[in-house]
Amino acid sequence: MKIAGVPTRTLWLADGAVRVIDQSRLPFEFRTVDLRSLADAVRAIRTMVVRGAPLIGATAAHGLALAVRDDPSDRAIEDAARALLATRPTAHNLAWALDRMRAALANLAPAARADAAFREAAAIGDDDVARCRAIGEHGSAILRRLARETPDRPLNVLTHCNAGWLACVDFGTALAPVYLAHDEGLALHVWVDETRPRNQGASLTAFELAAHGIPHTVIADNLGGHLMQRGQVDVVIVGSDRTTAAADVCNKVGTYLKALAAHDNGVPFYAALPASTIDWSIARGEDIPIEERPARELTHLTGLGDGGELTTVRVVPAGSPALNLAFDVTPARLVTGLITERGVCPATSEGLLGLYPERRRER
Amino acid sequence: MKIAGVPTRTLWLADGAVRVIDQSRLPFEFRTVDLRSLADAVRAIRTMVVRGAPLIGATAAHGLALAVRDDPSDRAIEDAARALLATRPTAHNLAWALDRMRAALANLAPAARADAAFREAAAIGDDDVARCRAIGEHGSAILRRLARETPDRPLNVLTHCNAGWLACVDFGTALAPVYLAHDEGLALHVWVDETRPRNQGASLTAFELAAHGIPHTVIADNLGGHLMQRGQVDVVIVGSDRTTAAADVCNKVGTYLKALAAHDNGVPFYAALPASTIDWSIARGEDIPIEERPARELTHLTGLGDGGELTTVRVVPAGSPALNLAFDVTPARLVTGLITERGVCPATSEGLLGLYPERRRER
Repeated sequence: MKIAGVPTRTLWLADGAVRVIDQSRLPFEFRTVDLRSLADAVRAIRTMVVRGAPLIGATAAHGLALAVRDDPSDRAIEDAARALLATRPTAHNLAWALDRMRAALANLAPAARADAAFREAAAIGDDDVARCRAIGEHGSAILRRLARETPDRPLNVLTHCNAGWLACVDFGTALAPVYLAHDEGLALHVWVDETRPRNQGASLTAFELAAHGIPHTVIADNLGGHLMQRGQVDVVIVGSDRTTAAADVCNKVGTYLKALAAHDNGVPFYAALPASTIDWSIARGEDIPIEERPARELTHLTGLGDGGELTTVRVVPAGSPALNLAFDVTPARLVTGLITERGVCPATSEGLLGLYPERRRER
Repeated sequence: MKIAGVPTRTLWLADGAVRVIDQSRLPFEFRTVDLRSLADAVRAIRTMVVRGAPLIGATAAHGLALAVRDDPSDRAIEDAARALLATRPTAHNLAWALDRMRAALANLAPAARADAAFREAAAIGDDDVARCRAIGEHGSAILRRLARETPDRPLNVLTHCNAGWLACVDFGTALAPVYLAHDEGLALHVWVDETRPRNQGASLTAFELAAHGIPHTVIADNLGGHLMQRGQVDVVIVGSDRTTAAADVCNKVGTYLKALAAHDNGVPFYAALPASTIDWSIARGEDIPIEERPARELTHLTGLGDGGELTTVRVVPAGSPALNLAFDVTPARLVTGLITERGVCPATSEGLLGLYPERRRER
């Protein structure tokens, strides 16, 4: 999407490197980082220079390509895939992208692998853009339909965390419908959950909506339920880091609480996701491993100091332990529908199999 | 409760002054402030050196006593009450405490008023302690009963915001059951919601639990639902800023989301409150006015910088608006019971009238 009017992606090739936006410095500094080796890619994913399930997948694919350029042996590919996979345990796209890369390289002579790896990584990125655009088209139709019920005011969309274009290569998942509907002229306003502890909403979602010119308001994660009680939310759209075959949605921690509030107040609640986030091997959301991240992400917070420099402060007393689990699971019963690149379906096994009938044959 | 093993209140008399804990510097600095005049008391309440409805009431009563010591005339008393009332116009306990002080002084000769004022202010503080202790006794019986179901591990209590002894004179409301049960030897552990945007959980609740030696863990407001899904929360106890005659509970924003999660997972959800928070004139929670506070409380955050000094950073980009509503309303249907100084009742009109039958006669 656009930054200062210029169409931009989150990852591209430049100067012999894989260039990514350093999202750990947003919204206060816009900087890019050049990944020149497997180690650079591993570090970028682990330290959340890049984040968001689709972008993690695309970055891992490019990281594998960098590894193959340096050593195209089978063993090096397996070692690289293992190192990349270990960076983030919950995101399903990561495993999916690495499997796709390995399949593309498996039957090639080592000398041909580097070129093929960069081609396949680029295709993974381009495919992600196409999928996100398709999600945006299916989702914007939902927004236009809902907006007909509120002709006198902008449609109020609530989102949690960042499932925008910064989480993907372009367009985003949860925000793709918002961008497409906005660009088509629909009046809308986005409630942006701050999304503690890493504040991806207050930083990334607010940044990208502001950069593209979409009206929005940042709120504490605590406020969404109250706004729904007061009729100030027309629809919730979130992303998904992993979706089970039964349509349970694993997404940034706190998503479940918003789904409960939406259900309690009759507000439609959608998860927008490419098929690559669907884990057909898992039926029950409880079986998804939940990533525990460093407590420091909760006890410390980085923002802009008085002098305009990035400053980190401690907000929890040193004598108090903190627990930082990054995801939760929203049961399918609370989800109105899934917005995928193939269309919208009910949040059920049958709904998913209706869109992905090839999975029915496999089972 | 205790700080470093020493029983402490939030307000006491010392060296000819009213001494209070400066809560605006907690959890990083423990300092006391001596109030020696009406002006000192007014400033302490307005700048939130003291906060929490019961403590505001007790501080105002002592502020009036300081004013009477300097000038016991009717006119001085009225002027002082007006100045104190203007500090936090919405706090119900403030008006209640000032009315009680004026009633105690009205028929006394000016020469007798200063002594009587300090006596009455002390009684207001002591009454608050007694009410909180009673809430603690009724609530700790609930905790002991629940703990019998989990004999092999500590009982896990989740609380939102700060309804502990720092908000009162001693014991607290929501935390009083925790303190009493702990002091009686019950093994328990408290999940402390950070409570954005003012972080009263991460700062005040964490501080007072640590100071008293109660095991606890600070979590993002987003995490409680997930912990309940995983069976890691045995009971939720929160305070109440205003309770309707139909037992809807208005408390710090985000309370409603925790109540929904508790209900969805069969976790008992209690509100602990003195009768002074019950607004018998309002039946429906929707009719409670919700305070909007400065957006800066959300966009900026104060913590401890590298050099150990209190530092404020901006965490929301300047181009993004923010909305800061401070409370929400939890419908009575989601509340397991109310813990009051007279006992525990179902969260219904009949439940409340059973404990406060004098209100039935008035109606």
